[in-house]
Amino acid sequence: MSELLERMGAGARAAARSLASATAGEKNAALECMARALLEREEAILAANRADAEAAAAGGMTKSLLDRLSLSPARVAGMAAGIREVAALADPVGEIVEGGRRPNGLRIQKTRVPLGVVGIIYEARPNVTSDAAALCLKAGNAVILRGGKEALRSNAAIADALRAGLEAAGQNPDAVQLIPDTSRETANAMMRLHGVIDVLIPRGGAGLIRAVVENATVPVIETGVGNCHIYVDRAADLSMAAAITVNAKASRPSVCNAAETLLVHADIAAQALPVIARGLKDAGVQLRGCERTREILNDPAVLPATEEDWAAEYLDYIMAVRVVPSLEAAVDHIAAYGTGHSECIVTDSHAAAEAFTARVDAAAVYVNASTRFTDGGEFGLGAEIGISTQKLHARGPMGLRELTTVKYIVYGDGQVR
Amino acid sequence: MSELLERMGAGARAAARSLASATAGEKNAALECMARALLEREEAILAANRADAEAAAAGGMTKSLLDRLSLSPARVAGMAAGIREVAALADPVGEIVEGGRRPNGLRIQKTRVPLGVVGIIYEARPNVTSDAAALCLKAGNAVILRGGKEALRSNAAIADALRAGLEAAGQNPDAVQLIPDTSRETANAMMRLHGVIDVLIPRGGAGLIRAVVENATVPVIETGVGNCHIYVDRAADLSMAAAITVNAKASRPSVCNAAETLLVHADIAAQALPVIARGLKDAGVQLRGCERTREILNDPAVLPATEEDWAAEYLDYIMAVRVVPSLEAAVDHIAAYGTGHSECIVTDSHAAAEAFTARVDAAAVYVNASTRFTDGGEFGLGAEIGISTQKLHARGPMGLRELTTVKYIVYGDGQVR
Repeated sequence: MSELLERMGAGARAAARSLASATAGEKNAALECMARALLEREEAILAANRADAEAAAAGGMTKSLLDRLSLSPARVAGMAAGIREVAALADPVGEIVEGGRRPNGLRIQKTRVPLGVVGIIYEARPNVTSDAAALCLKAGNAVILRGGKEALRSNAAIADALRAGLEAAGQNPDAVQLIPDTSRETANAMMRLHGVIDVLIPRGGAGLIRAVVENATVPVIETGVGNCHIYVDRAADLSMAAAITVNAKASRPSVCNAAETLLVHADIAAQALPVIARGLKDAGVQLRGCERTREILNDPAVLPATEEDWAAEYLDYIMAVRVVPSLEAAVDHIAAYGTGHSECIVTDSHAAAEAFTARVDAAAVYVNASTRFTDGGEFGLGAEIGISTQKLHARGPMGLRELTTVKYIVYGDGQVR
Repeated sequence: MSELLERMGAGARAAARSLASATAGEKNAALECMARALLEREEAILAANRADAEAAAAGGMTKSLLDRLSLSPARVAGMAAGIREVAALADPVGEIVEGGRRPNGLRIQKTRVPLGVVGIIYEARPNVTSDAAALCLKAGNAVILRGGKEALRSNAAIADALRAGLEAAGQNPDAVQLIPDTSRETANAMMRLHGVIDVLIPRGGAGLIRAVVENATVPVIETGVGNCHIYVDRAADLSMAAAITVNAKASRPSVCNAAETLLVHADIAAQALPVIARGLKDAGVQLRGCERTREILNDPAVLPATEEDWAAEYLDYIMAVRVVPSLEAAVDHIAAYGTGHSECIVTDSHAAAEAFTARVDAAAVYVNASTRFTDGGEFGLGAEIGISTQKLHARGPMGLRELTTVKYIVYGDGQVR
C-alpha cells in the first residue's frame, strides 16, 4: 500500500508542478471539462451511489446519514454547477501580495503561489470529492482525496469523471486522485507523507480531527469542530436574543457553526430565559440547564446540565443553558469549553461588545448576529474548503486564497552581502 | 515533569490573555524594563555563562560552538539593544487586515491578533532567549522557551532577568518562561501540548526539525534548514556569477542561507567553472564535483561528488558542483535535493529568469543576487524569529506579523440566517 501512496504522491507532485504555471484560462477550461464530465457520467455515478446506499442501508446506516450519502440527478447537477462557480471566482495565484525596492537596489516581490499538493480526508458526503477537487485545482494545487468507506464507489466514480475531464482539457489527470482504499492504515500513512503532501485538511468530526493531529507529520489545518456559544448580556434586547439563539441553534443543528450552549447574564436571566426557552421549545430544542436556569424555567423537561454538556458539540436539537454572574464569567466559560470556532454576544452595550470581541479567542466573534454566518459564502469568499479552528495560516472560513502560499521573488543586478 | 509543563502552560495562557489586550505602549514599556533588567543583571548572567562555558569546554565542545555559547559584556549589551530595537518596531496587533459590509448589513472586520502561546525549541546560542522573548512579547504572545543543555545556566539567568523586567513593568512574568530541564522527554512532552501551545517554532539543525515534525501534535513552523543552490545559466555574466557564488558560499558558511551546491549550465561550464572555482579556492572553499566538473577543473583537490553531497547542508567551507545540461535539469536537481529555502539563478536572459522563478519551489528565489539576503533584517521586517521553509502560515523570514493570527469580528443588528 505504501508503494501505491508513493506512486500517487509522485503523480500529484508532477501534476502540481505543471499546474503551478497554468494560467487562469487553462484552469477554468479544465474545470469546465470536469463539470461536463460529471454530467456526461451521471448514470455511472448514480449507479455507483446506489450500490453505496444499498450497502449502507443493509449495514444499518441512519436515515439522516443515508440522506447525506445519496445522490440524485439534481445533486449531480449541483456538483457540476458548483465546479462552474469555482471557475467563475478570481484566480488568487500570481497576486503580488506586497513588495518594493530595498536600499541596496534589490527588488522584492512577495507573490502568491499554489501550496502544491493538498490532502483532504473527509467523511460521508460524496459531493466533497468534486467541491474540494475544484477549489484545489483553481488554486493551482494537485489534490489527494481520501473519502469515507460508505461512499467509496460514489467517490471513485466522481473522481474518474473529474480525471477524464482533466484529460479532455489536456491537463495531467493526477491533479485529482482518490485513494482507492479506506483502511485506517492507509489514512495514517497518508498523514505521514511529509515532503509529498504540503497540507492536510481533515473535514469531519472531532474524532477524525484528533486522529489527524495525533498522527500527522505533514502540516495540518484543523477544521470544523464547533462548540459555539450565544452569550446574552445584561444589556441585551430580549426579542433579538431569542431570535438569534433560535436561529443559531435550530436553523441547521448538524453544522459546525450551530450554537450548542446559551449563556445568560444573571441580571437579565429571569426575564430573558422564559422568552428564549419558549422560542427554542417551539423549534423543537431540548434544554439542559444549570441549577439557576432550572429554577427560573421551572420545567421538568429541562434536564440538569453536567460538565459533559458544557463540552458537548451536540449537532442536534439540544442546547445547554447556563446563567453566569458576569461577562467575564461568560468569557471564562467560553475559554474553558469553546473550540475557537464562532462565539456571539447579544448586547446593546458598547463596552460589553468591545470587551467580548477583544477577550474571546475564536475564529469569528459576533455582536448581535447568529453564529450561523461563519461560512465562506456568507463571508464573501465565494466557496470554502472548510472552516479553520486553528490559528496558523488560516482562521475561519477558508477560500481559494487559503489554498495558496507565497514565494519571495528577488531581483538583483549582482548584489552580494 | 508533565505537571510542571501543565503549570507552565496554564501560566502562559493566563499571561497571553492579559497580553492580548495590552497596548503597544504597555508592551514597549515592558520591553524597556526587560532590556534594563538584562543590563542590571549582567554580572549574574556572565557568571552563569562562565559556568556553562567551563562545563562545555570540559565536555570537549568545539571552539566555534564555544564561541556561539559565550557571552561578554558587549554581547549582553547587544541583547539589550536588540530588545529596544523590537520595541521600536510597529505593533502588528489590531491591524484591520481587511473588511467591509455584506449585503445583509453585517460588518466584517478581519483583525490581527496575537497567536497566544508560542513555543520555541533552540540550541546553543543564549541570545535567542532574549531575542525570541522580545519578538513574542511585542506581538502580544506568551512564550515557552526550551534551550539547549549547554546553555541552561545562561538561559535561566537571562530568563530570570526578563521576568524581573516584566514584573517591574507590572506585567505577568509568565509571559516569558524557560523550561528548567533539557531532557528529551520534556521536549517531547512540550511538543504535544496541543491546546496549550498555539505554535511551536524549532530553531536548529535538521535533526531537531525532524524530531519536532515526528513528535509534535501542536502546529509547527519548520525553519532554517537550507540546502541552497546557485545556478549559473548559459547567459550568465561570469564575474557576477563568481562574486555571487563566493559570497553565497563563503561570507558566512554556518548559516542556513549560505549556498551548498553550484549548478552550471553545460554550455558555459568550460568558461565559467575555472573563474568561479578560483574565487572559491581563494576563499578557502573545498569543492566536490561531478565527473564533468572534475574534467574541466582538472584539479586533484576537487573530490568526486556523491549522492550525499547533493543532499548535504555542509554549513562549512565545502561546496558541491554539478554541470547540468539545461535550466530544466537545474530546476529538477533543486526539486530533488533543495529544502525550499533560497535558490538563485545568475543569468542575463529574461526568459531564463522567468522560468526559474516560476518553477523553483522555495521560500525565496533570486535572480542575480546572493542567497545570503534571505533574512528578516535584509527583507525589511526589522527582526526575525526564524526563516520558515514550509508553506503554511509563513514562508521565508518571519517577523512580528508572522507571530500573529487573525480573528473575524462581525457586527450585526440582529441578523439571522
